[in-house]
Amino acid sequence: MHKIAMLGAGLIGRFYTMSLLGYRGKDEVKVVCARRPDEAAKFAKEFGIPHSTADMTEAIRDPEVDTVIIGIPNYLHKKAVLLAAEAGKAVLCTKPLATSGPEALEMLEAVEKAGVFHGYLEDLVYTPKTLKALASAQNGALGKVLWARSRETHGGPHSDWFWNKQLSGGGAIVDMGCHCIEIGRNFIGKNNRPLEVTCWADTQVHPIDAEDHAIGLVRYDNGAIGQFEVSWTFRGGMDLRDEIAGTEGTVWLNHWLRTGYEMFTNVGQGGYVAEKAEGDTGWLFPVGDEIGSLGYVEMFKDMFNSMDAGKRPMEDFYDGYIVNAIIDACYKSAETKKWEAVEITTWRGESSSAAEVALKDYDETHFLSKEERMPNGNLKIILKDKKTGQISQVIKE
Amino acid sequence: MHKIAMLGAGLIGRFYTMSLLGYRGKDEVKVVCARRPDEAAKFAKEFGIPHSTADMTEAIRDPEVDTVIIGIPNYLHKKAVLLAAEAGKAVLCTKPLATSGPEALEMLEAVEKAGVFHGYLEDLVYTPKTLKALASAQNGALGKVLWARSRETHGGPHSDWFWNKQLSGGGAIVDMGCHCIEIGRNFIGKNNRPLEVTCWADTQVHPIDAEDHAIGLVRYDNGAIGQFEVSWTFRGGMDLRDEIAGTEGTVWLNHWLRTGYEMFTNVGQGGYVAEKAEGDTGWLFPVGDEIGSLGYVEMFKDMFNSMDAGKRPMEDFYDGYIVNAIIDACYKSAETKKWEAVEITTWRGESSSAAEVALKDYDETHFLSKEERMPNGNLKIILKDKKTGQISQVIKE
Amino acid sequence: MHKIAMLGAGLIGRFYTMSLLGYRGKDEVKVVCARRPDEAAKFAKEFGIPHSTADMTEAIRDPEVDTVIIGIPNYLHKKAVLLAAEAGKAVLCTKPLATSGPEALEMLEAVEKAGVFHGYLEDLVYTPKTLKALASAQNGALGKVLWARSRETHGGPHSDWFWNKQLSGGGAIVDMGCHCIEIGRNFIGKNNRPLEVTCWADTQVHPIDAEDHAIGLVRYDNGAIGQFEVSWTFRGGMDLRDEIAGTEGTVWLNHWLRTGYEMFTNVGQGGYVAEKAEGDTGWLFPVGDEIGSLGYVEMFKDMFNSMDAGKRPMEDFYDGYIVNAIIDACYKSAETKKWEAVEITTWRGESSSAAEVALKDYDETHFLSKEERMPNGNLKIILKDKKTGQISQVIKE
Amino acid sequence: MHKIAMLGAGLIGRFYTMSLLGYRGKDEVKVVCARRPDEAAKFAKEFGIPHSTADMTEAIRDPEVDTVIIGIPNYLHKKAVLLAAEAGKAVLCTKPLATSGPEALEMLEAVEKAGVFHGYLEDLVYTPKTLKALASAQNGALGKVLWARSRETHGGPHSDWFWNKQLSGGGAIVDMGCHCIEIGRNFIGKNNRPLEVTCWADTQVHPIDAEDHAIGLVRYDNGAIGQFEVSWTFRGGMDLRDEIAGTEGTVWLNHWLRTGYEMFTNVGQGGYVAEKAEGDTGWLFPVGDEIGSLGYVEMFKDMFNSMDAGKRPMEDFYDGYIVNAIIDACYKSAETKKWEAVEITTWRGESSSAAEVALKDYDETHFLSKEERMPNGNLKIILKDKKTGQISQVIKE
Repeated sequence: MHKIAMLGAGLIGRFYTMSLLGYRGKDEVKVVCARRPDEAAKFAKEFGIPHSTADMTEAIRDPEVDTVIIGIPNYLHKKAVLLAAEAGKAVLCTKPLATSGPEALEMLEAVEKAGVFHGYLEDLVYTPKTLKALASAQNGALGKVLWARSRETHGGPHSDWFWNKQLSGGGAIVDMGCHCIEIGRNFIGKNNRPLEVTCWADTQVHPIDAEDHAIGLVRYDNGAIGQFEVSWTFRGGMDLRDEIAGTEGTVWLNHWLRTGYEMFTNVGQGGYVAEKAEGDTGWLFPVGDEIGSLGYVEMFKDMFNSMDAGKRPMEDFYDGYIVNAIIDACYKSAETKKWEAVEITTWRGESSSAAEVALKDYDETHFLSKEERMPNGNLKIILKDKKTGQISQVIKE
Repeated sequence: MHKIAMLGAGLIGRFYTMSLLGYRGKDEVKVVCARRPDEAAKFAKEFGIPHSTADMTEAIRDPEVDTVIIGIPNYLHKKAVLLAAEAGKAVLCTKPLATSGPEALEMLEAVEKAGVFHGYLEDLVYTPKTLKALASAQNGALGKVLWARSRETHGGPHSDWFWNKQLSGGGAIVDMGCHCIEIGRNFIGKNNRPLEVTCWADTQVHPIDAEDHAIGLVRYDNGAIGQFEVSWTFRGGMDLRDEIAGTEGTVWLNHWLRTGYEMFTNVGQGGYVAEKAEGDTGWLFPVGDEIGSLGYVEMFKDMFNSMDAGKRPMEDFYDGYIVNAIIDACYKSAETKKWEAVEITTWRGESSSAAEVALKDYDETHFLSKEERMPNGNLKIILKDKKTGQISQVIKE
Repeated sequence: MHKIAMLGAGLIGRFYTMSLLGYRGKDEVKVVCARRPDEAAKFAKEFGIPHSTADMTEAIRDPEVDTVIIGIPNYLHKKAVLLAAEAGKAVLCTKPLATSGPEALEMLEAVEKAGVFHGYLEDLVYTPKTLKALASAQNGALGKVLWARSRETHGGPHSDWFWNKQLSGGGAIVDMGCHCIEIGRNFIGKNNRPLEVTCWADTQVHPIDAEDHAIGLVRYDNGAIGQFEVSWTFRGGMDLRDEIAGTEGTVWLNHWLRTGYEMFTNVGQGGYVAEKAEGDTGWLFPVGDEIGSLGYVEMFKDMFNSMDAGKRPMEDFYDGYIVNAIIDACYKSAETKKWEAVEITTWRGESSSAAEVALKDYDETHFLSKEERMPNGNLKIILKDKKTGQISQVIKE
Repeated sequence: MHKIAMLGAGLIGRFYTMSLLGYRGKDEVKVVCARRPDEAAKFAKEFGIPHSTADMTEAIRDPEVDTVIIGIPNYLHKKAVLLAAEAGKAVLCTKPLATSGPEALEMLEAVEKAGVFHGYLEDLVYTPKTLKALASAQNGALGKVLWARSRETHGGPHSDWFWNKQLSGGGAIVDMGCHCIEIGRNFIGKNNRPLEVTCWADTQVHPIDAEDHAIGLVRYDNGAIGQFEVSWTFRGGMDLRDEIAGTEGTVWLNHWLRTGYEMFTNVGQGGYVAEKAEGDTGWLFPVGDEIGSLGYVEMFKDMFNSMDAGKRPMEDFYDGYIVNAIIDACYKSAETKKWEAVEITTWRGESSSAAEVALKDYDETHFLSKEERMPNGNLKIILKDKKTGQISQVIKE
């Protein structure tokens, strides 16, 4: 059983607290910290949390607390992590870990030096669908993963600070690209080193300095591609999808807009439909278990179970650091209009498999390239001569 | 915090235990009871349950235990309930409550007389999707519910006793119709009395005496129809869908085969795909959070929270009794090939709204029947003369 | 090349004409006949049809015409067919063929006596999806078809006469049940005799005498069930789905609301979305090729190709007669609240396979009932002893 | 009525011929030309085409023929077009128009100089879904189109020549990127000039020189992004999807794998499922009307109707030229790892709208950035101060 200081009482603090307290759990939130005392007090009252404060240091140093959960704006993460490390508390930090790679590295070094438990709250790799699909991929169901496309698009974030590049560290990339990058990294395999990125980013719709739309490709040393698509300009709700392609299989995950819950209403239902939904009449696509579908429940389970078992969680600050390093390269590429190398000071992955094409024999003199059943029922086979490289076809009726 | 005796170590006992112990919960399973001592011991070991036994009475009377959960074959429910009532323990019973309406009534009277907490473990009304859709319906998003269709079809149950009419009380109707009937009842409104049913049932595929396929209609006093479709002959996995139609809206819930998780694999993934899945190559449709999607998590949350709060849970033995009474009428109708009345000895619902068509005025002399936009852009309006009843149309270009 | 008299200039006449003239076809519509001369003239001008008239006899007897297509209200079908038969013209009649079984039989006898080509324009068995699925079923992909469920629900028909029981012969059953019944009959196999029906029908919403909602089951002599669900009360557009279940497979066809075309618009698109769509903002589900998706293109191709080849089309008046006979039994059952026999004077089907359960051997002493992979990876097998009938289970780890 | 020489008897010639002859059409194929005389003769016999030959010049110059349709390998397009132009025949050329931009330009100049009708057979912009979605976009339903993503992935092409870079001009980009690029161009608007591209391409799986996987971004002068994703490495069938995002709406088109036709079969159906399907048991996703769904029917209708009306078709050689110019830039970018300019010698588009963010007023001193309904029911509004640029939020309870 753990005793928690919750830093932040915004949407993310709410989701975290609902996950922690919603299921007859044995862990307890002892204190909540928010920007303003009244805001903190209101939140504490709503969730039955015994203490509230607007003083982050006080919350972190609360003697009853053994774990600090950081759910505050990006530019404050470092300060909170350093305080928690100093206080010798376990620290779980929301995504992105930092506003840049070097800052993330500093935070990683601080927690490692202090020897405290550190978890990176990358919830979207913890959705039940993602966990199960990752297990399938790891069991070989997809063969070698070639391409991991992850997308998060909606109409923009909830809080004002997120729209301010100085406070958040960027726009849609830093807000949502961090999710997509880490999802791709998990499917491709964390031992594979991200080598370089290309990224397009633009401000297409909103009156802001940061990008509200971006697309990027991350190339790994085994030849796999992690693709992210993030936008604050999307209409129709929140689109949260992952599509993984391997040599032997494919996985498509839809986390939000098409999950088997469809409603038409002519009159509306008086209120909230789903996070970032638009409108409340016509065809609506609510999500049954929002907190579970976003991965919060499994994430905290892994964090606290790992803490109890004395082992690393699935996602820790090292992962957060890698993601920040990739994001830095993305912003650079969006400026230079070239592929840019990912700068990682301390690569801890093992050497990964080489980027090679696996050749399949058809017969002694040919490689097999493809087989397909045609509309007239024939089987068509594409071959390559092992010596001459000549491509030919065989048709079996 | 509650201390539980789990009766049953089959699939249902497993799902229940995983729900109770899977999420860092504070409630504890103190003893598990199974048919054979070794089976009980193995289960206890797997889940870290301190005691195991093959003696149901011993488990129920265990002085540490305050709550008995019944996850054993239908023909044993009554015995377990009577023992739990006698021991003054809270009792949560799996579905169906009993093998017949009169038996269910006897069990209801026993727990009420003993004054113990009683919950009916009808998990499928507790899925996060269903709870949210029920809330929408109750908020008026669908207008008056006219038709609630619920379907559960798969290739047949897991345990031998379920295929034996004497032990289970029937076939697909008693196994799955109980879910569908109660889902319909919740959407239509529990205050509306089920009046009569018509039901077709047949043994189409399996070498058994019980029905392996059935379709039924339950007519409520407000004119609404609850429809169930249940089959042990379905190919392609488990089809679990609810479709609710009201005067102002529609809800479609898909709980299993199409929930936004799609996988193609050429090589398989070495093992379990999802409950009642067929095959493990080609296109597969796993379910992310099986236990959550089946309603177990929210169900136990409601049960224990209600117990703590001293109030009735969403589903109790009275609901189980009504469902059994409807099932009895279904079996009768399948024999007589006529609509049969639902026999309810003690109807506790309030009087429901009458089965009337609500008339909408178009103008002083006409009712509005329908409006539609045509392919050529015209608006076509169908009217009924208030006096003559004559139907006419108006076209607006 | 054929020369056509088109009777009717409503929605159905429009769809028919668009199908016939829309694809650089060689067949020609020579004359169109509508209720009012101006309506006919306007329609003729729109589609480049040389003649128009309000006189049905004149259109049918037009010496240039070799084929009469009937797209007028149900109560006028018989008159048009008798005139066409008398004139020795090929006659293609929209659905339902007649307002009752005996009327349909009279029409069948008239065209057969006159020796003219007769086609029953049951478009929904001709959708490209349905044709392909029927071919799969006939190739054995589904094993024995056990259950064919077909559904058509929307907010009600376009024309005033359809809401008038006297003119149309009924309500939703006669309007849409005819489609669903014939779809079921095709999948189950036309050689299987429909024996009896049970049907619920009610007027739940509209201010009319006819039923606006009905559900029916048709039992065939081989034990298969054809199920139809029809409603004029549905909200959310037009729901057009078929679900076929067999011993070896399943087919799900969605013809309208979910066909891979999804649009969200905040501003609307100024006009028609799809037949019977509701609203034009929010999430919309248009249909790409409405005419093709409804089967019109393939239907007329079959009709004229069959005419040219001197053979029966896939659907002729005999099929229309069987459908009307089933509908008559449905209306009777809705009154008597019992299963009612289908009265067919002249059954032309061959004898069908008996309604027997096919037993599969597991070993010498047991039948196999079911196999399933369990969550813990075990294989569970349900068996029946050939002699004692005892059911047992085997678990393979 | 037109008389056609069909060059090519492979899969594409088959689809073209089925489209032209399949629907009681008035146009006729007079001669078919294939690599080998026996292949041509067999094809002619199958489709009832009066003449066949292996001599392309003979087919083109056939005095009965007025229209030449080119369905042969890419490296032969130029020769065929020059011959057709010389013979003064209308010429319809399959995609891609040429193996490079300069070659395409030469072909464009030849047909324009000869004054013959020229059509570019880019079928995928002609699918009924695409045509309808384009009409919606042009009617303003999506606002300004910001992002048009188009994807075609499958296991690789049918014919050997396509796998040979020298004969086809490239790999997956030249094979399928041409479709995706032109789909994007249509949605974004043909008047908007494609300025530059970035492209990743790799050979991940097959033993070939050409790329079997590529992702590219095309930036238009109005700020919109056309994205293509093409792969010959995809497992699970053919994935053919377009996703268009605009300031006011979204369109998602799925042309192949999820179109409302789902089948499970335990036994297979003995043969062809759908183009590029994998396997024939388990869950399958056939396509009802393959030829219609791929756009062939509407494409030829537009081509011949435009020819008859003396106007340009929706797609002509100029469009083919632009696509080839974009592809050239893609191949260059894949080499240089930088954004590369699209070289268009003769830009015929009008000047397009500038790439500007449209500002919406909230009140006199603020721009509106976003509004959203929160889980607790509050409305949250993000604003930007018009003078200071400061971002702030307003919460309405």
